[in-house]
Amino acid sequence: MMFKKVTSADHAREIFLKAIAPLQGDEDSSIEESDGRISAMDVVAPVDVPHYRRAAMDGFAVRASDTLGAGSNSPVMLKLGKDVEKGVCARVHTGSPVPQGADAVIMLEDTVLHDSMVEIFAQVHPFKNVGEIGEDIQKGETVIEEGHRLRPCDIAVLASLGIENIKVVKKPSVAIIPTGEELVPRRKRTLRDGEVYETNGLMADLYIRKWGGITRLHEIVTDNPEKIKEAITSSLDTDMIIISGGTSVGKRDYVPAVVESMGELLVHGVGISPGKPAALGMINGKPVVCMPGYPVAGIVALYWFAQPALWKIGRIPDEPQRCVRAILAEKITSRAGYKTFTRVRLEIPHAGSYRAIPLATSGAGILSSVSKADGFVIIPENVEGRSRGEEVEVVLID
Amino acid sequence: MMFKKVTSADHAREIFLKAIAPLQGDEDSSIEESDGRISAMDVVAPVDVPHYRRAAMDGFAVRASDTLGAGSNSPVMLKLGKDVEKGVCARVHTGSPVPQGADAVIMLEDTVLHDSMVEIFAQVHPFKNVGEIGEDIQKGETVIEEGHRLRPCDIAVLASLGIENIKVVKKPSVAIIPTGEELVPRRKRTLRDGEVYETNGLMADLYIRKWGGITRLHEIVTDNPEKIKEAITSSLDTDMIIISGGTSVGKRDYVPAVVESMGELLVHGVGISPGKPAALGMINGKPVVCMPGYPVAGIVALYWFAQPALWKIGRIPDEPQRCVRAILAEKITSRAGYKTFTRVRLEIPHAGSYRAIPLATSGAGILSSVSKADGFVIIPENVEGRSRGEEVEVVLID
Repeated sequence: MMFKKVTSADHAREIFLKAIAPLQGDEDSSIEESDGRISAMDVVAPVDVPHYRRAAMDGFAVRASDTLGAGSNSPVMLKLGKDVEKGVCARVHTGSPVPQGADAVIMLEDTVLHDSMVEIFAQVHPFKNVGEIGEDIQKGETVIEEGHRLRPCDIAVLASLGIENIKVVKKPSVAIIPTGEELVPRRKRTLRDGEVYETNGLMADLYIRKWGGITRLHEIVTDNPEKIKEAITSSLDTDMIIISGGTSVGKRDYVPAVVESMGELLVHGVGISPGKPAALGMINGKPVVCMPGYPVAGIVALYWFAQPALWKIGRIPDEPQRCVRAILAEKITSRAGYKTFTRVRLEIPHAGSYRAIPLATSGAGILSSVSKADGFVIIPENVEGRSRGEEVEVVLID
Repeated sequence: MMFKKVTSADHAREIFLKAIAPLQGDEDSSIEESDGRISAMDVVAPVDVPHYRRAAMDGFAVRASDTLGAGSNSPVMLKLGKDVEKGVCARVHTGSPVPQGADAVIMLEDTVLHDSMVEIFAQVHPFKNVGEIGEDIQKGETVIEEGHRLRPCDIAVLASLGIENIKVVKKPSVAIIPTGEELVPRRKRTLRDGEVYETNGLMADLYIRKWGGITRLHEIVTDNPEKIKEAITSSLDTDMIIISGGTSVGKRDYVPAVVESMGELLVHGVGISPGKPAALGMINGKPVVCMPGYPVAGIVALYWFAQPALWKIGRIPDEPQRCVRAILAEKITSRAGYKTFTRVRLEIPHAGSYRAIPLATSGAGILSSVSKADGFVIIPENVEGRSRGEEVEVVLID
């Protein structure tokens, strides 16, 4: 029993993403709830910010022409008033309105106040220390572009414009179907020989939520083509389906054949290690990621296929991965022709420098090795490995 | 009016963090709810994983000694049974238990099945393709260390051990107090001249929640020392206080003096740009971050002081910041003696390479410039700036 064809990791991802269409649905969100969401609209400023001429300094609003010739040895005297006119200035604070007649603000430091008179020791040009209307944001200006991922600082900008609601892209919904007759629901009972608790579905569920999706975790499905088909059929109302387990070429591996019978099997067998048994398909326009049941292979399939698929569906902009550069403490050998994900632990021998220690175990079944790992060193197909002492990029595990 | 003393950015942070004690409180969390939380305990495996000898391959469980001499041209014949003994093998699937009498599994690919007899074309050593009890995780082994930030893959490990609850460090609670007589609560009414909507408190609130805290946003407090004191007093039940506005040295800037009157003012005036008016203090053992009212200076103070303080309180391990390396499209000049945060926009001229375009505006009041920025280039005090074409690190804005 062998894979008919092994598709390279990059090509498999490319084929899969090409088949996926971004979600069209929008929804309204209050700005407080929109952190991390994707704007579904260009947001145009409904007002100017500031909407009035504001003082940029504590000091006195003046007519600039009244300060002509003023200097540290040649002060000018102005009357202190409320309105500003020739010979009269008015007290202003940073942010307060600049009275009509004034065209500049003189810093407090350059003045001395004598009761109702102000002695001015510097000359200012018109517009000095005056924030004009619309200086920050002009009415009609686009402040947030469609497709932008909203951050707290963006939300503050919206709030400053008096905008309280925004249209955001709907979160993609993802059905997660764990399969395998060896699986037992957690909390159910003590395990017998040959049984394990279902954990891949849980893990996929948490990652998808972390990456911006909404999840629906299906109950465990046994290794039976009809049952798998039923589970997929009942999940086609979601935007993506992740099936865990049953993706290899063993006697009990029915998932890829079921996907093929219901739609299109795009890829079965990927040049990725661990993760070779991964399969990808489309059913009724819905992407289907078949992640291997071995947990480490499963997490690699989630990272390599499910995350970019989720982001394409949800119009979530590709963000740079969380990475650090580290010096390899031991050489790494990779599997020829496979994009190899090596788990490493990071040490910080001195501030700002990282050392990556490859985790010895190679078993794709050893979930604890992921838990011990801080990240992956990803080795391309055409490279044999990495030498001890080499600087490598470590992709941190979310 | 001037700052009595400007403390360097690094030293100010160091003084502040030294004064802060990590939170001692723990709480129970279901594992599903513990993603991103900090483990408050060493978690020890209560069972072995696997808890039975499991087959690592689809094939037949055998006594290794029965395969002695078997090869592609010299097969050995074994009877197919359920129990394994001399001359008898049993069918196993990946993950299924290996029967008592067997000590190895021979891959399906190396066999041919004839009704009740199995022809074996390869020799195996004892233990070949057999996962021993505790091979993944040994009973008594520490699987999660105290202080570890839990990720979905860690949670899956806990689930595989039948662990459903874990003690996590309490989330630090943070009171956020916006001050300023120019501030108007959002949704309240249209703004008059001299008024702005309160947005710094909202922004701080969203960042603190994103970084792992629980927030309580106080109502707006006007520029009045007694009112500020009241607001602080009513917030001393939280683990940290952030006060926005009133931190400079103007006539209406009462916050640092109030902090000093109630506890200890550690720093007022920081060699950071924008953000010079930031102040730091301790009241009743609670850290107080006074962030400047100018929004861009405010966000710098949140990043530089509030985030590390929150992490120290919450025992949250310092994670590498999300960064990319980029080529500067224009030179940047920095403020001598100040750690300068320059906002930049990123472009991707071709895959995998970034170009950083400094945003021209220098005004600390221009919040929209943060919204247009993807990140900060941070220039140390002792460097004059960065040249066009230089490679720089860009810290992405969360």
